Amino acid sequence: MTTCLHRQVFLASRPVGIPQASDFAIRSVAIPEVGDGQVRVRNVYLSVEPAMRGWVNAVGNYSDPVPIGDVMRSFAAGVVEESRAPDVPVGTWVSGLFGWQEQAVIDATQIDRTVTERDLPLSTALGVLGINGVTAHYGLLKLGEPKAGQTVVVSTAAGSVGSCVGQIAKLKGCRTVGIAGGEVKRQMCLDAFGFDAAVDYKAPNFLDQLAQACSGGVDVYYDNTAGAISDAVWAHLNVGARVVVCGTASVANWDPPPTGPRVERQLLVKRARVQGFVIFDHIDHEPAARRDLAQWLRAGHLRYLEDVLVGIEQAPDAIAGLYRGENLGKRLIRISDL
Amino acid sequence: MTTCLHRQVFLASRPVGIPQASDFAIRSVAIPEVGDGQVRVRNVYLSVEPAMRGWVNAVGNYSDPVPIGDVMRSFAAGVVEESRAPDVPVGTWVSGLFGWQEQAVIDATQIDRTVTERDLPLSTALGVLGINGVTAHYGLLKLGEPKAGQTVVVSTAAGSVGSCVGQIAKLKGCRTVGIAGGEVKRQMCLDAFGFDAAVDYKAPNFLDQLAQACSGGVDVYYDNTAGAISDAVWAHLNVGARVVVCGTASVANWDPPPTGPRVERQLLVKRARVQGFVIFDHIDHEPAARRDLAQWLRAGHLRYLEDVLVGIEQAPDAIAGLYRGENLGKRLIRISDL
Repeated sequence: MTTCLHRQVFLASRPVGIPQASDFAIRSVAIPEVGDGQVRVRNVYLSVEPAMRGWVNAVGNYSDPVPIGDVMRSFAAGVVEESRAPDVPVGTWVSGLFGWQEQAVIDATQIDRTVTERDLPLSTALGVLGINGVTAHYGLLKLGEPKAGQTVVVSTAAGSVGSCVGQIAKLKGCRTVGIAGGEVKRQMCLDAFGFDAAVDYKAPNFLDQLAQACSGGVDVYYDNTAGAISDAVWAHLNVGARVVVCGTASVANWDPPPTGPRVERQLLVKRARVQGFVIFDHIDHEPAARRDLAQWLRAGHLRYLEDVLVGIEQAPDAIAGLYRGENLGKRLIRISDL
Repeated sequence: MTTCLHRQVFLASRPVGIPQASDFAIRSVAIPEVGDGQVRVRNVYLSVEPAMRGWVNAVGNYSDPVPIGDVMRSFAAGVVEESRAPDVPVGTWVSGLFGWQEQAVIDATQIDRTVTERDLPLSTALGVLGINGVTAHYGLLKLGEPKAGQTVVVSTAAGSVGSCVGQIAKLKGCRTVGIAGGEVKRQMCLDAFGFDAAVDYKAPNFLDQLAQACSGGVDVYYDNTAGAISDAVWAHLNVGARVVVCGTASVANWDPPPTGPRVERQLLVKRARVQGFVIFDHIDHEPAARRDLAQWLRAGHLRYLEDVLVGIEQAPDAIAGLYRGENLGKRLIRISDL
């Protein structure tokens, strides 16, 4: 009897702040036997997202940190290659928290979703039809409550969530202003994602650019960054503004929290609302969001960009790379053919 | 023909931060003739409230600042003594923005409200049945959305808004924690207003006191202070917490805003909501709120304290006194008999 090996990326040390390549390591281990009610998924795409920083940090977060020595927690999309679960035939496309590994032997109940949109690329299950698109849809529409004619500002606007937020806001009749880092991403906002205006937060005249782009004030701010970028946007909030806090990508370390201008007076004067959310609380919203998103994709109303790294050995540095801002679009690691 | 004089307190200079006695002056001027559709109100009580700081400061706020030389803007309650408005007979009790003056000749349309609760003291029209009570009722119930069994924390808990918030929360079945400055006010929270726990923010062990009082976490924080007191409460927010920003009494100057710990991460991890509001946006809520409040008063479920200064010459220093924390209960100036 031969033993088959597969590779896993595991957490080797506890990062403080942004997880670096050195916090992970790769090992080859035996593929477990598939038990009753289980399936073996061959992962095709592994996901890389900013939230992973929170999944490995020790300080208070919205999920327990990945233990040292465990396979890195990650969304993945793949194909069922062995099945002892009657409802999940071999060949099914699936997605879920399968981890940074080549093969995932899991209970069938751990499958988040059977990917039924087989006319669309499997990779979309991790991006625009996955957590990123659903996050954009929920945060903007349910918490931001944009009205036609209002101004919606999005930070990390060229990213996978931000670009989706901007396009949905545009579909709802809003004026959209994207904030991104560098001229390339700024142009992407305009050319690829149809923002009405786009501002480079790295430009020396960022504050002036923003003031000009937001001359009518800001009704919805979809915040993926926190920090100084947010301070600049807050200065333009209109009365009744809604701020949706989705991510804090611009702040490397929250232990202890950095300081910034207090916002209570602005909240009061502008009768503003700020709401933080974590999409995992709202899985009931997913089917409706995914229906909308798939329909917009097929109709050509929604564009997405992917930044695909090839090979599992790319994984350890992939999160740090996100925070270096080197990716354009949703970052994925392709580790096998479909 | 004789001319009758009355006294007015007017804004003599533009304050930066908290308005001081020297920013006001008193003059005697002729009482205007009562024109068609007008009434003359003899003010009995003038109101003093923290929000008046914002009404006289030049920096961005929720109402235009009082011009230099104008009578100080203020709520007042009084009796109609002359009327050329058919719907408002002499003897009617009224309240509205009648200003810091002895007599107010106004269009009848400027009357906010005919005070119909003549079984209750007229002064309540400016406190527990006026802007303070309605603010507490709206902010807590509509924005805080307290559920029975949850923990509600209130800052300036011995004050006119805070004490009302605490008692309403208790009526709704919540556990209530009051924060007040000094042992006298802390005891008032427990003895007069029935808070389950009360904490002195001036005590050296304030943080420990608060942690003990909030060992089950905080579901609703009704914030009247901002600043370091709020930072301490934020550390205890439960998942799904609601923060209601009603006032910023602990911060003397917002130009420029002081700095404090950034809150985005806490908002995200705790899926928290923060909402600022200004009660003037919600006058449609007033009748229902006042019905509740008057009913609770008559049933003995709601207590209120008043800090009554006597004589219009007390007005210039009255706002600064609030910020010095010298009052116990709602501050009023009584300038004539009823």
